[in-house]
Amino acid sequence: PDEQARRQAVARHAQLTKPAGSLGRLEELGVWIASCQGACPPRPFTRPRVVVFAGDHGVAAEGVSAYPSEVTGQMVANFLTGGAAVNVAATNAGATVRVVDIAVAGDTPELIATHKIRRGSGAVNREDALTEAETAAAVAAGRAIADEEIDGGADLLIAGDMGIGNTTPASVLIAALTDTEPVAVVGRGTGIDDAGWMRKTVAIRDALRRARPVAGDPLALLRVAGGADLAAISGFLAQAAVRRTPVLLDGLIVGAAALIAEELAPGARRWWVAAHRSAEPAHTLVLDQLDLNPLLDLGMRLGEGSGALAALPLLTLATRVLTEMATFEEAGVTSTEPV
Amino acid sequence: PDEQARRQAVARHAQLTKPAGSLGRLEELGVWIASCQGACPPRPFTRPRVVVFAGDHGVAAEGVSAYPSEVTGQMVANFLTGGAAVNVAATNAGATVRVVDIAVAGDTPELIATHKIRRGSGAVNREDALTEAETAAAVAAGRAIADEEIDGGADLLIAGDMGIGNTTPASVLIAALTDTEPVAVVGRGTGIDDAGWMRKTVAIRDALRRARPVAGDPLALLRVAGGADLAAISGFLAQAAVRRTPVLLDGLIVGAAALIAEELAPGARRWWVAAHRSAEPAHTLVLDQLDLNPLLDLGMRLGEGSGALAALPLLTLATRVLTEMATFEEAGVTSTEPV
Repeated sequence: PDEQARRQAVARHAQLTKPAGSLGRLEELGVWIASCQGACPPRPFTRPRVVVFAGDHGVAAEGVSAYPSEVTGQMVANFLTGGAAVNVAATNAGATVRVVDIAVAGDTPELIATHKIRRGSGAVNREDALTEAETAAAVAAGRAIADEEIDGGADLLIAGDMGIGNTTPASVLIAALTDTEPVAVVGRGTGIDDAGWMRKTVAIRDALRRARPVAGDPLALLRVAGGADLAAISGFLAQAAVRRTPVLLDGLIVGAAALIAEELAPGARRWWVAAHRSAEPAHTLVLDQLDLNPLLDLGMRLGEGSGALAALPLLTLATRVLTEMATFEEAGVTSTEPV
Repeated sequence: PDEQARRQAVARHAQLTKPAGSLGRLEELGVWIASCQGACPPRPFTRPRVVVFAGDHGVAAEGVSAYPSEVTGQMVANFLTGGAAVNVAATNAGATVRVVDIAVAGDTPELIATHKIRRGSGAVNREDALTEAETAAAVAAGRAIADEEIDGGADLLIAGDMGIGNTTPASVLIAALTDTEPVAVVGRGTGIDDAGWMRKTVAIRDALRRARPVAGDPLALLRVAGGADLAAISGFLAQAAVRRTPVLLDGLIVGAAALIAEELAPGARRWWVAAHRSAEPAHTLVLDQLDLNPLLDLGMRLGEGSGALAALPLLTLATRVLTEMATFEEAGVTSTEPV
């Protein structure tokens, strides 16, 4: 992000018809957007864009989710017909949605399967999620998708996720990268019962035993204990930073990929804002590790990008404040600041 | 709020294509809106409406604000020409703004002065803010404004405030109603320096000495230590509840009036949601007293209704989730719930 635009935005905030600093975090957000765009006042977002990365996980067969894997493909269809939470939240926030099949177990329409890596990732509690070639291809797919969107005019990116069982590998990645014990990262996911929680804890423990030796190598970690969707989101987030495009981060799954992306492209996190704090316990580890302060804390745990979309109107507002509000001078209001 | 619609909304949430409870607080919000409307699914808001209550305060002459009283009238003009934060935030959230002059010290356009009670309220550190007749008239004005708006189609109400010095009487009301020591309610308001903070603390201490004896009588409290704008907002909030219309509460000033309104119309708080936690310390006392859990905590302290408008898109989203999302059955998605 650009330092000159940042300073200009700070100065502009002091001239707008409000007490200095009185919009709190919204002022910081506006300054960040100006610095990302290298322009003050910033330009209102014209094409905020959500990409939902769908993929299945072999570990779902261990009974770590409240839902069967077939739901992943069913939900992809629901995204395409506009009935899911991500669709409603995107419409509400003025964003549009793209769904990509990275590793759904079944078939999906050809239109969304052009970046498909494989049918489901491996069961990370007992086998590698991906081959080395698949890992590289999945990260490259995420990068390519970011390029496609940015070349298509997207000026704010959101990654979303869909995949039964995906909180298990995501929690493993987070535990490995933050050196955390298994039991501290296990959440209820889609809403598992106590027996499911115990199965999930065992699966995470076993996967983490496989993951720890490669925790220092982000690509190896994705291969051993991640998945194609997580790899693609990592590439997407890293490339967005390379392309100097701001990203609003969603919850647990995107957070796990963000930890990887920060390894792939150090400093990428300066292009990100955390939209919310998920109810999943491991997500707080991500926020702490990346030193990100979330905008919302509403106990959400859906994924799909829904948490990011709930917060998007705050970014829109923060931008419009800098763009549309009158200055003390314009409005003829007595200022306490030097004009 | 309606119990049957509440139960229907809870049941509908379990049928929508997402894990039960996964939208966290947004689900609770949607249930609340359905119960306020007595309808499930709830109707999307068609006319969310902000009313900004403007009024001056004699105590401003004591040097308790970073700005002179003339700014109140200047900001009213800024509201009317659309350059203030409330205008930008309303546009961003799909709401419209009305400004009413309740007690501005100077003249304002006739169009907005039809409910004007007097020119500035008394300096509460040494005299009553209002006469008994003025207090009654101000509360009645707030009730009449709520009626006008609801009769005009408003289906969600927001009260905002504008008035140099208004955090002083508001903090006094809150201290009196929550039995709190002066120093614990003193905030920086528009951004006073340390000398101003000391003057404000003395003014609040003196006003509180006058207020405590009448703390059990809400109308007497408004008369002795409140102000016409605070009285009008109290009447507005009480009448909204009488008219079964949901309200999104802003920060400190509206919070002080909300404490009074809950006295005037016990149970009114069930028609309110707290939009945010203000940076003003006394606002947390309000939230605790009314047992309201704010949606946002962004360090905002501007007033005008800006905090409520920052949160409004969350209410809109919560409503649309119940209205627009597909059910498991409609989308053909395998459910864990009994259909």
